Amino acid sequence: MNRYTENITDEVKQALVAVVTEARFLDRPEETACYAYDAFLEEAMPQAVVFPRTTEEVSEILKIASAHRIPVTGRGAGTSVCGAPIPLCGGLVACFSRMDKILEVNTRDRYAIVQPGVVNADLQKALAPFDFFYPPDPGSIATSTIGGNIAQNAGGPRCLKYGVTMDYILGLEAVMADGRIVRFGSRNVKDVTGYKMASLFCGSEGTLGLITEAIVKVVPRPETTKTMMVTFSDLDDTARAVSDIIGSGILPAAMELMDKFTLNAIEESADLGLDREAEGTLLIEIDGVKEACEKEMARIVDQLRANNAVHIEEAATAEEQARLWTARRSAYGVFAKLAPDIFSEDVTVPVSRVPEMVRQIKAIAEKYGIVTGVLAHAGDGNMHPMIPADRSNKEEWERVEKAFDEIFAAAADLGGTLSGEHGIGLAKTKYLPLVMNQDSVDVMAAVKKAIDPLGILNPGKFV
Amino acid sequence: MNRYTENITDEVKQALVAVVTEARFLDRPEETACYAYDAFLEEAMPQAVVFPRTTEEVSEILKIASAHRIPVTGRGAGTSVCGAPIPLCGGLVACFSRMDKILEVNTRDRYAIVQPGVVNADLQKALAPFDFFYPPDPGSIATSTIGGNIAQNAGGPRCLKYGVTMDYILGLEAVMADGRIVRFGSRNVKDVTGYKMASLFCGSEGTLGLITEAIVKVVPRPETTKTMMVTFSDLDDTARAVSDIIGSGILPAAMELMDKFTLNAIEESADLGLDREAEGTLLIEIDGVKEACEKEMARIVDQLRANNAVHIEEAATAEEQARLWTARRSAYGVFAKLAPDIFSEDVTVPVSRVPEMVRQIKAIAEKYGIVTGVLAHAGDGNMHPMIPADRSNKEEWERVEKAFDEIFAAAADLGGTLSGEHGIGLAKTKYLPLVMNQDSVDVMAAVKKAIDPLGILNPGKFV
Repeated sequence: MNRYTENITDEVKQALVAVVTEARFLDRPEETACYAYDAFLEEAMPQAVVFPRTTEEVSEILKIASAHRIPVTGRGAGTSVCGAPIPLCGGLVACFSRMDKILEVNTRDRYAIVQPGVVNADLQKALAPFDFFYPPDPGSIATSTIGGNIAQNAGGPRCLKYGVTMDYILGLEAVMADGRIVRFGSRNVKDVTGYKMASLFCGSEGTLGLITEAIVKVVPRPETTKTMMVTFSDLDDTARAVSDIIGSGILPAAMELMDKFTLNAIEESADLGLDREAEGTLLIEIDGVKEACEKEMARIVDQLRANNAVHIEEAATAEEQARLWTARRSAYGVFAKLAPDIFSEDVTVPVSRVPEMVRQIKAIAEKYGIVTGVLAHAGDGNMHPMIPADRSNKEEWERVEKAFDEIFAAAADLGGTLSGEHGIGLAKTKYLPLVMNQDSVDVMAAVKKAIDPLGILNPGKFV
Repeated sequence: MNRYTENITDEVKQALVAVVTEARFLDRPEETACYAYDAFLEEAMPQAVVFPRTTEEVSEILKIASAHRIPVTGRGAGTSVCGAPIPLCGGLVACFSRMDKILEVNTRDRYAIVQPGVVNADLQKALAPFDFFYPPDPGSIATSTIGGNIAQNAGGPRCLKYGVTMDYILGLEAVMADGRIVRFGSRNVKDVTGYKMASLFCGSEGTLGLITEAIVKVVPRPETTKTMMVTFSDLDDTARAVSDIIGSGILPAAMELMDKFTLNAIEESADLGLDREAEGTLLIEIDGVKEACEKEMARIVDQLRANNAVHIEEAATAEEQARLWTARRSAYGVFAKLAPDIFSEDVTVPVSRVPEMVRQIKAIAEKYGIVTGVLAHAGDGNMHPMIPADRSNKEEWERVEKAFDEIFAAAADLGGTLSGEHGIGLAKTKYLPLVMNQDSVDVMAAVKKAIDPLGILNPGKFV
């Protein structure tokens, strides 16, 4: 797979060790193997792994890599579900776990400055004493890093109301392929000084540069949060309720949909007392000023009743809220136990098309005789069809792949797109033509080539 | 100034006329002169102006321009205050006034699709019957176009709460310099399919491509809006009140600051019954659910009193709200009458530095013996020092320029930036080194060169 002419020779190794010391350089296969995969299905071995501690070290590493045309793939916690940090062409993995400092928290000016290896949950902990939070909350919040979140433009349940990672990146420091250190954006929430390069880096999956520092926007915690679990005897009703609530002008903080299969898988594993007979379940959260929440909750309940909700349970305490979210957040882990492999997808459609998309996912799965659970950040049309399967069973896996081909085509037909929050990575490059013409892809490639002319940054990915 | 080898010859003219017809081609100087300037101070004559009606026409125009290396500068309503649409190198102006159709309004899925020449206020009118609105509200809202707003990443008073233009651009169709038609983004609020090219186009000032269609996010109108005018006997108190309100975790929809000079200029012109003795005035607006507004208003009043507010007047009716906003919105026009020229700036600092920045603007103006009014979207630190002066008075103008040099340096020292919403254009390229290192500027230039290798798109601007 390695299409590069030079490898990490002894000379290169010495140069890298001189930058990061022996203690932060790995090249024994039993050690580098841990950096060959993420939460997607593929693997590729790096030749070496380095753990920089400073921007200057990252710059030196990239100068060496450029001089020897060694591929460099950035890595946070490796929780990507699209293969983004898999070093497809070998070479070097630059792992940011040692650049994990929160450099500044400034709630008066509503920003924090962090190194890329800061774990999302640790930033939340640092903000909590100020009654502030950082809205993007990917499923991997407990372990994934802000650098990785930026590289993937991560989403999460509460992005329905609050927006995704890009909406919170005010400024970035990054190191370019040739070692130059650049800074884009600033501490200012409004800044139109030059191209929005920091936004371009969001979701660029390590293909444009390595992020070494980020200025992120933080926001005050709302005074009240209300959470409810709603069940339906019909999945179509469930999806329509979502579309009707959004269509009526209410924007909850989160609106998560789970189908019967998903709910039963969770209940099997966690015994949370969920309704196993429900065909569809919604976990809805609203937040804000107390009186506003009460008013919105009443309006939401009207919409739910109009769509034949069977049971509406509002969490009375913080513990009950936590229990409801535990159910939702455990879904991925529960699925992962059902079969040797789990294919978690991420199609997104305009919210009014959610009912139709749910029907199509179910019909396609049935057509190919595969098991599927539907889990969705339904309020923004972002759906995660989950297929547990055995990849070593070639015949079964072919059916899974055909089903996904049809699911992506269906999403594109409904005005949807390939990914709402997981990214393209290795997983979905082949589907790009469904949503982009070749000229548009070519323009992205031209930008990549201009910024990384040797193509050493995370080669083999979508661009 | 024209650094291009070929002009618009008869042959080129014939080719352009074949695309847009005689009726939509201007090349008589008395006609093209109207397209030589914007609301900034410079002028440069285009050789011809075309008014495309379709994306395909734009594509044909750019193919011709590429073949003959003719500069092409896009233009909306020409309300830019930084010189962005001034055709510095001559050539062709592509004016989008005939591509002014609203193609779709879809409030269920919260988007609208518009041609670039749609006037911002017309989009608001089209959304009003659905009780929706499009948040970005630049001062030029009544005349400026969505295409121009995107090219400049326009802001406005309510961007404090709602964010700027980029936050509302879901997808774009654009024509590249060589005529290729590309589409980035989609109708989906969450979309991480490839690079965020649509975001890169926001604020690119026509240097990357010509925008021919936009999918914009629209949002439900809040049920209540409360507006108040607050006066202070001290400008420092005024600025500190802003910083304290934001620091306390409240995010009003808008928080506009005017100093005594500005207020008196408005009152002189409009006789609105404003308090001429006030050293500082705040126009504060909050919106949302009625009960939440009442609660927030009470908290804001606490902060205002703690900062020695003299008089707090809440608008009791929609007419009174309109009167208060008329005062604020008239400021630019009022200043424009005070002297032959008006220099309106746009520095931005973190909100906690607003008091210090106001003090420095006043001190610098005094040092150079020039008149200045301070007008600010103060809640997000975005300040518009306004200097009415006579540019033909060389000595005076030199003092004005020196004052601005120091104002920008002061903003940079406070962690601020050159522009919050007006853009760089012709006005501020020379100040870029204050906030960006050369490597960062070079990366922007590399992107520009990759996308527009002949450099025909709006040449002579910041990149």
